Amino acid sequence: MNTEPRTLPGFMELLPNEQILFEQMKQKIEKAYQRFGFLPLDTPVLELSEVLLTKSGGETEKQIYRFNKGDTDISMRFDLTVPLAKYVAKNYGNLSFPFRRYQIGKVYRGERAQKGRFREFYQCDIDIIGDGELDIVNDAEIPSVIYTIFKDLGFDDFTICMNNRKILNGIFESLNQKENATSILRIIDKIAKIGKEKVEKELQELGLNQKQIMQVMEFIAIEGSTDEKIEKLQKLEIKNEVFQTGLEELKQVVKYIRLFGVPDINFKIDLTIARGLDYYTGTVYETFLNDYPEIGSVCSGGRYENLAGYYTDKKLPGVGISIGLTRLFYKLNEMELIKATKYSMADILIIPMVEDLSKPIELASNLRKAGISTEVYLNDKKLKTKLKYADKLKIPYVIVIGEDEIQSNQLKVKNMQTGNETQTTFEIEEIIKQIGS
Amino acid sequence: MNTEPRTLPGFMELLPNEQILFEQMKQKIEKAYQRFGFLPLDTPVLELSEVLLTKSGGETEKQIYRFNKGDTDISMRFDLTVPLAKYVAKNYGNLSFPFRRYQIGKVYRGERAQKGRFREFYQCDIDIIGDGELDIVNDAEIPSVIYTIFKDLGFDDFTICMNNRKILNGIFESLNQKENATSILRIIDKIAKIGKEKVEKELQELGLNQKQIMQVMEFIAIEGSTDEKIEKLQKLEIKNEVFQTGLEELKQVVKYIRLFGVPDINFKIDLTIARGLDYYTGTVYETFLNDYPEIGSVCSGGRYENLAGYYTDKKLPGVGISIGLTRLFYKLNEMELIKATKYSMADILIIPMVEDLSKPIELASNLRKAGISTEVYLNDKKLKTKLKYADKLKIPYVIVIGEDEIQSNQLKVKNMQTGNETQTTFEIEEIIKQIGS
Repeated sequence: MNTEPRTLPGFMELLPNEQILFEQMKQKIEKAYQRFGFLPLDTPVLELSEVLLTKSGGETEKQIYRFNKGDTDISMRFDLTVPLAKYVAKNYGNLSFPFRRYQIGKVYRGERAQKGRFREFYQCDIDIIGDGELDIVNDAEIPSVIYTIFKDLGFDDFTICMNNRKILNGIFESLNQKENATSILRIIDKIAKIGKEKVEKELQELGLNQKQIMQVMEFIAIEGSTDEKIEKLQKLEIKNEVFQTGLEELKQVVKYIRLFGVPDINFKIDLTIARGLDYYTGTVYETFLNDYPEIGSVCSGGRYENLAGYYTDKKLPGVGISIGLTRLFYKLNEMELIKATKYSMADILIIPMVEDLSKPIELASNLRKAGISTEVYLNDKKLKTKLKYADKLKIPYVIVIGEDEIQSNQLKVKNMQTGNETQTTFEIEEIIKQIGS
Repeated sequence: MNTEPRTLPGFMELLPNEQILFEQMKQKIEKAYQRFGFLPLDTPVLELSEVLLTKSGGETEKQIYRFNKGDTDISMRFDLTVPLAKYVAKNYGNLSFPFRRYQIGKVYRGERAQKGRFREFYQCDIDIIGDGELDIVNDAEIPSVIYTIFKDLGFDDFTICMNNRKILNGIFESLNQKENATSILRIIDKIAKIGKEKVEKELQELGLNQKQIMQVMEFIAIEGSTDEKIEKLQKLEIKNEVFQTGLEELKQVVKYIRLFGVPDINFKIDLTIARGLDYYTGTVYETFLNDYPEIGSVCSGGRYENLAGYYTDKKLPGVGISIGLTRLFYKLNEMELIKATKYSMADILIIPMVEDLSKPIELASNLRKAGISTEVYLNDKKLKTKLKYADKLKIPYVIVIGEDEIQSNQLKVKNMQTGNETQTTFEIEEIIKQIGS
């Protein structure tokens, strides 16, 4: 009896046409990272549990794929940040700082399986790590990478939302709510989901008085253009050092983000964004496709004080972002929001209709040498079957080679989309002209 | 106290310069696969143990990373062939045959750790799967892919060694040693390692008489050019159907491999090659770098009767190869046999020596728009430190921008290798001319 060939739930496995689309998307992201000079990194999927599980307990720990092999306690990575921290601490002496790396790889989280949630998924990360210090202007370069990527993916109407954690922390300090900062952040972070009234109610439950609640709500309700928001923040005249530092940083980021070529329509200050409550300490980012808010943030990240405190006493501040590619692809594909630049790997299918395959194979070899992806249909089938194959694989051009073609040294290049056929010779350059690449 | 940042033994983790080299190697292999029209495939690293572990027991099973998550018995893939079998059986109705796919991904084997042996390593596979049948000419296309790859990797002196399992099986049948075929194959497969005499001794121990041993040794000693070997095989006049089928297949493969553009110096018939004892049924390949036989075969594979018998009753013959990239990279890098086409991701480092970063950042954005990988040194350091950074990262060109450059609208493009500086303007096209890309 056969075993049923099945794939674990929550693990994406695509058919060829979709895989081609996925690969193109991945490549666009990678090319953008490279254009900004980020260095490639590849770390193991498996790490010692002791090394990987730096933060104790919580939801994350429950999701980890963890097991013993012999005496070794091993875990599968659940993000690319902890492996980066380990890598930088381990190789500190051999790296040049600022260390700018990208990593595109699979990570693993044993979440409850549900539609659109994946247990194995690609993260596409960049981080810039400083040795002891890292200038604020780096925080402005990151959004320009995000901007480049989503433009390259074919989107125009997206917004990179930014905030600075120091602004939030400073506000709470000035309200004498420093000890409640984390809780307040958690509450206002939910405003898009639960609404203004529920936020007020939760703040009250936390112990804030009416005046304090009003000040918090007034703060997060600040509206207007980017420059107007900055002006209004200044006019709050909050005499708190942390707040003023955060505001100064935000101003710098806004100044430089424009110089990096990100237009004002593609970024904004959003004072409700807090992100991961402990990790980030300065600038934070979230990115939304404006017509599809239901997808949620498609690219998030921020600035952190210290990457690798768990492994080293060196202070390593950094700033970075992550794109959850698998989920993003799944959503965009489901909503038909992405198109492949081409849907087949081969540009030309050569269909031999002769016993002796010499001529067709020779032609394919020559086309490949000229850089044209070429496939030869190598099985003995009827012409109709062979053409159907080209059609199903969406191969754009077909050349049928029979006795006539070989005798006359003339062949026809068939455009499979239009059905048009153009006559030419076996000359490679002539054929390349016909397919226009 | 800090946790020591360490990586599991047997897991490769490279420094940036080496990672760049690795990525280039991987990309050359992928591009070659694509030029032959192979479709990309990505399957999960994790599979149900019941689905993955189709073959019972043995060394492989012991090496598997296998664990339970909840009630699910999960294993990490140990090759890309079993996942392919599962995929083709599962998606049979949605695939076009012949199904030509490539897959480049990590696989896992918990082997005893030793130098140059990896527990996580990349395999780069191609396979051509037929539906019911697959023409022998496909077996000749595979070596032409191998040839393309090793040429692209910069090698000239390599040999693709081929044999046909049917020739071997036929010989043994004709010697009335059919039941010993597997054992004989295993013995002669070792001839390169243990030598002729030990092979003879082992054959004797197996129960072959002197005449039979002589015939086996005579057979595997067949020498000469490819055509001479074929001629000598024909002259053996072995009246065995399996042998004759194998010989006919080998003749076809040799005929077409030449048409596919593989020169005679890069392939040969090697009658001692048997490979995986159960799996392969026809053509088999191994590839050697002639000056470095100690590396062993750098690319191996062959023809099999039936890919997915464990999952489906459909007969799915195929032919394919695998490159163990991680080990190959490790060896070539250790022996300094590969060079990067470039060692940095950035083509240009822009070094600002001004307070206001507007002009340097604007220049970087414009260069990136023109497709030039550009990095701006964004931290406030001395010029010497910034130049050292470019040097360490092997960034080929540097542009320093100070007040003078901005005032005069003139800048210098410095070639970091030659030390030459050429004067030009902020015009992107002019700068691109200077760096010659």
